[in-house]
Amino acid sequence: MTTINFFEKKSFKIKKLFPKKNFNKNILIKNVKPLNYAQKDDLTFFDSIKYKSLALKTKACSCITTKKLSIFLPNNVEKIIVQNVLYDLAVALKKIYPNSDVDFPDLSLKKPLNKKFPGVKFGNNVLIGKNVKIGKNSVIGSNTIIEQNVSIGNSCIIGSNSILKNLIMKNNVIIQDGCKIGQKGFGFIPNKIKNIKFPHIGHVFIDDNVEIASGCTIDRGSVDITKIGKNTYIDNQVHIAHNVRIGDNCMIAGQVGFAGSSIIGNNVSIGGQAGVSGHLKIGNNVKIGGGSGVVQNIEDNKVVMGYPAVSLRKFLKNSKK
Amino acid sequence: MTTINFFEKKSFKIKKLFPKKNFNKNILIKNVKPLNYAQKDDLTFFDSIKYKSLALKTKACSCITTKKLSIFLPNNVEKIIVQNVLYDLAVALKKIYPNSDVDFPDLSLKKPLNKKFPGVKFGNNVLIGKNVKIGKNSVIGSNTIIEQNVSIGNSCIIGSNSILKNLIMKNNVIIQDGCKIGQKGFGFIPNKIKNIKFPHIGHVFIDDNVEIASGCTIDRGSVDITKIGKNTYIDNQVHIAHNVRIGDNCMIAGQVGFAGSSIIGNNVSIGGQAGVSGHLKIGNNVKIGGGSGVVQNIEDNKVVMGYPAVSLRKFLKNSKK
Amino acid sequence: MTTINFFEKKSFKIKKLFPKKNFNKNILIKNVKPLNYAQKDDLTFFDSIKYKSLALKTKACSCITTKKLSIFLPNNVEKIIVQNVLYDLAVALKKIYPNSDVDFPDLSLKKPLNKKFPGVKFGNNVLIGKNVKIGKNSVIGSNTIIEQNVSIGNSCIIGSNSILKNLIMKNNVIIQDGCKIGQKGFGFIPNKIKNIKFPHIGHVFIDDNVEIASGCTIDRGSVDITKIGKNTYIDNQVHIAHNVRIGDNCMIAGQVGFAGSSIIGNNVSIGGQAGVSGHLKIGNNVKIGGGSGVVQNIEDNKVVMGYPAVSLRKFLKNSKK
Repeated sequence: MTTINFFEKKSFKIKKLFPKKNFNKNILIKNVKPLNYAQKDDLTFFDSIKYKSLALKTKACSCITTKKLSIFLPNNVEKIIVQNVLYDLAVALKKIYPNSDVDFPDLSLKKPLNKKFPGVKFGNNVLIGKNVKIGKNSVIGSNTIIEQNVSIGNSCIIGSNSILKNLIMKNNVIIQDGCKIGQKGFGFIPNKIKNIKFPHIGHVFIDDNVEIASGCTIDRGSVDITKIGKNTYIDNQVHIAHNVRIGDNCMIAGQVGFAGSSIIGNNVSIGGQAGVSGHLKIGNNVKIGGGSGVVQNIEDNKVVMGYPAVSLRKFLKNSKK
Repeated sequence: MTTINFFEKKSFKIKKLFPKKNFNKNILIKNVKPLNYAQKDDLTFFDSIKYKSLALKTKACSCITTKKLSIFLPNNVEKIIVQNVLYDLAVALKKIYPNSDVDFPDLSLKKPLNKKFPGVKFGNNVLIGKNVKIGKNSVIGSNTIIEQNVSIGNSCIIGSNSILKNLIMKNNVIIQDGCKIGQKGFGFIPNKIKNIKFPHIGHVFIDDNVEIASGCTIDRGSVDITKIGKNTYIDNQVHIAHNVRIGDNCMIAGQVGFAGSSIIGNNVSIGGQAGVSGHLKIGNNVKIGGGSGVVQNIEDNKVVMGYPAVSLRKFLKNSKK
Repeated sequence: MTTINFFEKKSFKIKKLFPKKNFNKNILIKNVKPLNYAQKDDLTFFDSIKYKSLALKTKACSCITTKKLSIFLPNNVEKIIVQNVLYDLAVALKKIYPNSDVDFPDLSLKKPLNKKFPGVKFGNNVLIGKNVKIGKNSVIGSNTIIEQNVSIGNSCIIGSNSILKNLIMKNNVIIQDGCKIGQKGFGFIPNKIKNIKFPHIGHVFIDDNVEIASGCTIDRGSVDITKIGKNTYIDNQVHIAHNVRIGDNCMIAGQVGFAGSSIIGNNVSIGGQAGVSGHLKIGNNVKIGGGSGVVQNIEDNKVVMGYPAVSLRKFLKNSKK
């Protein structure tokens, strides 16, 4: 995970971050990262036994978790024992990254100066934020907005009326018209009077040679990244939620939807209007039929179809009834 | 129902409105409203036995209906007996509201003057129609269009490239990028040569603390409103048809679709890609699984899943076969 | 099929187009067209036994095909025998139409001059490409982009923030806000390192009196057209892939998706969120229930529902189990 920060960030002493807790050492927290990416100055969080293997070897200095799960963390990790991990994580994130829980539109946008972007072609009314990088031979369509700190590689073609934010994009990527990439995901702590918005401090990473068709929405990661692997092609009106990681060489047909945090292998093909539930692991070379609803993990090389998705053989047998 | 009129409106004497019918008194029709909202100067309509309880106590002065249904209307209501209620309603609406059957783009748009909107921050190229109200501390993203008469509360955040029309929005609402809100719904009288467009004279009402993610479409009501209740959160690419009313504290995941005139209770959660058919009533605290297709009313507190959606227990039993 | 070319085109001698093949006569190839539209200067292609009846009477001068299929082509057609028809077609198309495999945004866009478009009303920031035609009494909403060579008829209403390219539209058509029409479809030759982009040289044809709601995506044809028939109404967020042909007087509800090359008859109604697989033929007067997944041809006058879609009677029987 690259360490670019798209959001204003403050460092906090742990006692100030969690004033109701007691700590022996008042360590300095510089960042918040997932279990597997956290380093010695980072706070992390551990909220599900699913992530036990990552918890066992985390390098974080401190971790928000429950009493039950805390036994799997290394001894030297400062445990912050709470009832609701995501709630306390949201509160801590809001302190460290005060502007990441709401998508304030970038008000620093300006028309691009050609001298700042040599070799880049712009359509009309393109708007660019501060510190945006665009590689040579890239083309940006009219009315497209690229917010601050976004990085676009060489020879990328971005269509018109698209909005890119909190995004790192490599080379030879094509984005068609009307895509919205990098916005805050659908994560919050429900509350009957007023939901607590969950800060989303991650970004979207799009690798080389990806093609994304019109009208897609790709949310940025919450405390992680959302990733589209090399040479993956995505059709119109696809929805990709926060923290989803799609592998290389995948083919995703129109109107497919991915709920949050699912991990898709390489060479996966998914038919139109299929849906993948959250927090799943789909293996390599998997084929998912159009309209399917995937609600459990799928091993490598499987072909599935149906709602809920089952093996193609079982689906065909059931359909004959 | 608020009585703001987003569309040019003409008053009509009833004999001029229905020249082929006979009336004793030539009453003045000032407006058209649903059975339960109509007052003494209003025309209403009654086209389905479903709405019998509302018909029994309507306060309208006149009502388009069929011979069969007319017996349920109060005696003092002038009955306009027709074969096809919606057809005659469309013809009357077109006379009273001549511009409401086609979404003419607002050609009165201008760049906002800061002095007209104190305390509001605007991105670049924002376009605002006549008589738009925006409360203090609201932020409007670049390229967003807000058409005439729209009202936006305090502390709202509207993303970029969104289009808002025929909309009343309260405070602390967040709309992400590329949403289209308030356009005409999918209602018309089919005709093999040229369909008759159905005037849509309603609007969209969005209550406090709502959050709507990217690329959603919310159609305005036809002769009613489309409503999103307080603190309801809606994910990317959700489609909400005309006259739908969603309650408070709901969670609607990505790519969900609502057909026209369905009423959703409070605290309802709906998984990604689920669909709700038209004219249904979904109770409070209902949970609808991702990918479900809801085709009948659901009582309070039920958990349903499947296509067609059944109780979760039945769905799991069927899935094991 | 009209013969308007939206893309730069080069003529090629057949020996230069296929340098590894042997030909008796070095004929000049002027264009590439489907089997049924090809004329004597055209290259065509024949890749599936499904299209045998069209192959038997094609008028093309030359045809890319397999050894097995080549026997169905007329004697006077020059056969170009290959392993993978679509691969060799893609290579030939890329030579003849060098700019049709990537949607380069139109960089010739300008604000419209009123004298060039008499009787047309424009919103703010409309951008128009070279050689665009717009008929009288049409209205174009703000921020809408109409790329080069697009033709729009009389009395059309185009909403705001829409993008139209590679499109021929007749009269009285309404397009609501945020539609993307005419972009490249989801066609490519998969390759594990870098997919080969398939040139899309077709366009979209929208006939009289069509209405298309907000946020729809309609891809242009690959080597054919994508067509919407007269008086067909399409709701929000519908996805129509390349080469789909929808007949007259159809009603397509919200979030429906069509995979590539399917042909839909006249008077077809399709409920919300239904999906139609690729290369299917749906008859006239067919009704498809909401949420259905259609995976095979449907005869005239049938009513189907379910996933996979079956007759309504069978669906209801299965649902009772």
